[in-house]
Amino acid sequence: MPEQRSPIAVQFGRNLARIRKQAGHSQEALAVMASLHRTEIGLLERGERVPRIDTAIKLASALGIEANELVKDIEWMPGSVERGGFAVGRER
Amino acid sequence: MPEQRSPIAVQFGRNLARIRKQAGHSQEALAVMASLHRTEIGLLERGERVPRIDTAIKLASALGIEANELVKDIEWMPGSVERGGFAVGRER
Repeated sequence: MPEQRSPIAVQFGRNLARIRKQAGHSQEALAVMASLHRTEIGLLERGERVPRIDTAIKLASALGIEANELVKDIEWMPGSVERGGFAVGRER
Repeated sequence: MPEQRSPIAVQFGRNLARIRKQAGHSQEALAVMASLHRTEIGLLERGERVPRIDTAIKLASALGIEANELVKDIEWMPGSVERGGFAVGRER
C-alpha cells in the first residue's frame, strides 16, 4: 500500500538499495544472508515498510556495515524538558 | 506479556536504561524529548517490545547518541551465498 509510505521508510529504502548495489548483491542473495524473505527486501527498498531494529541489524551485518549507515539522513529533532520552579523574592 | 520477551528486546532495553540513567533523565523527560508515551519507555526498558527504527532514532537523538549505541551487543551472524557453477574439464 503505497499510501502508507513514510519519509522514514523511503529514506531507509534508499540507503538500503544504494548500499546493496554497491556491495554487488542481488535482493535474493541479501535475503539469504539476512534470513529475510526476498519480498521483504523489495518492500523495504520501495519504502513501504519501516523495519524493526532486528531487521535493520540483520541487513547491516549481512552488508558488512554499521546499522547507522542504514538510517543515514533520518534525523529527529528532540524536544526539550524544563521543570518549572518557584522564584521567591526574585528581583524584578 | 513477558512471554514475548526476545533477547533483542532485552538487550535494547538494557542499553536504553543504562544510557538514560547516565544522562540523568527520567523516563518521563525522555518520553517528552522523544515524543513517545512514557509507558512505551518502560515497555522498551523491560525488554517487552522490539522497537522500529524510527523509535530507536528518536530515542538516540533525544539522548544525544548515535543509534548504534542503543543496539550495542546485538549481533547477527550473516549467512553466505555461493552460486553453483559448472567445472568442465577440471583436473581431478
